[in-house]
Amino acid sequence: MSESLFIRACRKEPIERTPLWMMRQAGRYLPEYRAVRAKSDFLTMCRTPELAAEVTLQPIRRFGFDAAVIFSDIMIPLEPLGFGVSFGERGPSIAHPLRQASDVPTGIPDGFEEQVAFVYRSIELVRQELPEDVPVLGFAGAPFTLASYLIEGGGSKSYAETKTFFYHQPEAAHRLLGLLADAVGRHLVAQVNAGAGAVQLFDSWAGVLSEQEYRVWALPYVQRAMRVVADAQVPRILFTLNAAHLYSALAEVEAEALGIDWRTPMGQAFDLLGDRFALQGNLDPTVLLGTPDQVSAEVRRVLSGVGGRRGHIMNLGHGVLPPTPIANVETLVRAVADFKGEG
Amino acid sequence: MSESLFIRACRKEPIERTPLWMMRQAGRYLPEYRAVRAKSDFLTMCRTPELAAEVTLQPIRRFGFDAAVIFSDIMIPLEPLGFGVSFGERGPSIAHPLRQASDVPTGIPDGFEEQVAFVYRSIELVRQELPEDVPVLGFAGAPFTLASYLIEGGGSKSYAETKTFFYHQPEAAHRLLGLLADAVGRHLVAQVNAGAGAVQLFDSWAGVLSEQEYRVWALPYVQRAMRVVADAQVPRILFTLNAAHLYSALAEVEAEALGIDWRTPMGQAFDLLGDRFALQGNLDPTVLLGTPDQVSAEVRRVLSGVGGRRGHIMNLGHGVLPPTPIANVETLVRAVADFKGEG
Repeated sequence: MSESLFIRACRKEPIERTPLWMMRQAGRYLPEYRAVRAKSDFLTMCRTPELAAEVTLQPIRRFGFDAAVIFSDIMIPLEPLGFGVSFGERGPSIAHPLRQASDVPTGIPDGFEEQVAFVYRSIELVRQELPEDVPVLGFAGAPFTLASYLIEGGGSKSYAETKTFFYHQPEAAHRLLGLLADAVGRHLVAQVNAGAGAVQLFDSWAGVLSEQEYRVWALPYVQRAMRVVADAQVPRILFTLNAAHLYSALAEVEAEALGIDWRTPMGQAFDLLGDRFALQGNLDPTVLLGTPDQVSAEVRRVLSGVGGRRGHIMNLGHGVLPPTPIANVETLVRAVADFKGEG
Repeated sequence: MSESLFIRACRKEPIERTPLWMMRQAGRYLPEYRAVRAKSDFLTMCRTPELAAEVTLQPIRRFGFDAAVIFSDIMIPLEPLGFGVSFGERGPSIAHPLRQASDVPTGIPDGFEEQVAFVYRSIELVRQELPEDVPVLGFAGAPFTLASYLIEGGGSKSYAETKTFFYHQPEAAHRLLGLLADAVGRHLVAQVNAGAGAVQLFDSWAGVLSEQEYRVWALPYVQRAMRVVADAQVPRILFTLNAAHLYSALAEVEAEALGIDWRTPMGQAFDLLGDRFALQGNLDPTVLLGTPDQVSAEVRRVLSGVGGRRGHIMNLGHGVLPPTPIANVETLVRAVADFKGEG
């Protein structure tokens, strides 16, 4: 595993070519994924290791990506904590949103990991099938993002319920965030034990916070989750969507790599954050809806921005979109392989 | 009108106290608004000058704000351009989204202004009722935001349809954006002619663009709309949500003032943008869901960040939220009035 390009890039070691994977690469843009999905609902796929392993492997077989992100969902660990999650057309929703201090679980229940053991079994199956130099990437949702889902009950534009809870029940809010940090930390450790070679925390919603609020409600719990998994000795990646205003706080994160969304040019991100971290990103996922020439040009722009600096993992700036044509992903793969540094 | 605190702050003249208004101040958080709304749907209220004027005046009567933003909607000028708009629980939607180059209108139809004359009539009615030193604020949506609504058909998370149209039909996209810039420019001019003392462009969605894309698809059309209204000689304000990564482009905008969302501390915004612009903002609207002490403390934090610099208009960092308690708005008003500069 130490020979993996992806892991070496996370450790900022010199590498012979830039590794590539795509967030949400096991997904609806792939016809072979849609064929599996046509016969099973989303949660069944998550909970059935053979199906989860199959769709995790599909993009590796087709494109030869340098990491295989396990097919799962950030909401999965919420069920053993006592929250019923369902997945509909408009994303996940929580049957009974958390609105009272008394709704905060008192602790992580016994058998927490057993209740989501299907994730670990999926990782074991994927690990058996993959070339040794392609790591499995485990993941979890960051505490603020998970807490927001629990409190809002689903997606939100204003986070009014979350902020109301935080402002009026700060003690309960901090208890909830601490519990989530410990739970996702343990979930990441168990994924490493099952064979994950690196782990990523997704903080999809922390970008709604000002830096001041981020330092109260998000950063301390990212740190706590990251510390739980530190002993596992695999690269830890934090992806925060929409975080251009949070970089001075992100500079303090205890992780080996940060994911950068498409809003910040990679050169600028390396200038600000590249000393301590490997950086992952950041082709705008909507570029993959453009023409092949646009895809090639934008890939070259991202790689030129990196300018040959160590510790770059090529990725999108957010998950690949369902209408993405396969041919554009092929163009992406080729453009990354063909790039001759201009840095 | 030249004595208005608000206008003088926009012009960066010295003023005796900081002017205050709130985006969406004529809205659902007010019981007197809900009483009007209970009897009329949203579009009827927009189209009936007596109703629009009444709800525009309500927050002035109650709180004594320093500007009265006309009750209307950024989607209003899209109807005379040939797009049916409806307003539901989840925001506006377009009956027949724009998906083909041939869907782009060939020009602004004759009688464009007459078809939205109810907005101008509302402004005239409000103007008659207001104290002379409280200006009416006219507004419109910025071209990129309006184009996104037209192409997506409503709200969006990924802007996949918009980007697909832009990338595959760039000529038609630029035609559309140019047409929208001219239309909103004319709509702003007509609002000034009806008595608006300042105008604001809302670019609610441009924050999804990287700076590179912003300079192609958004900035040129903001400039074009701003130039149309330049001769009207009133302060022009641009509010762009989620724009922390766009400040070096925003620094070039042809406007007198910029609205800053809550993500950037005001002191930092003044350091980056305060030389050329008055700046408006930026209390996090969710703070108004907190306790009175939190509201007072956060108002003081915003005003301390400004540090007594000229050209500050106090506002929220986005629209006031429907569950906001009246008492918290009263606390906001008092905290702004009571603030003694610590800058």
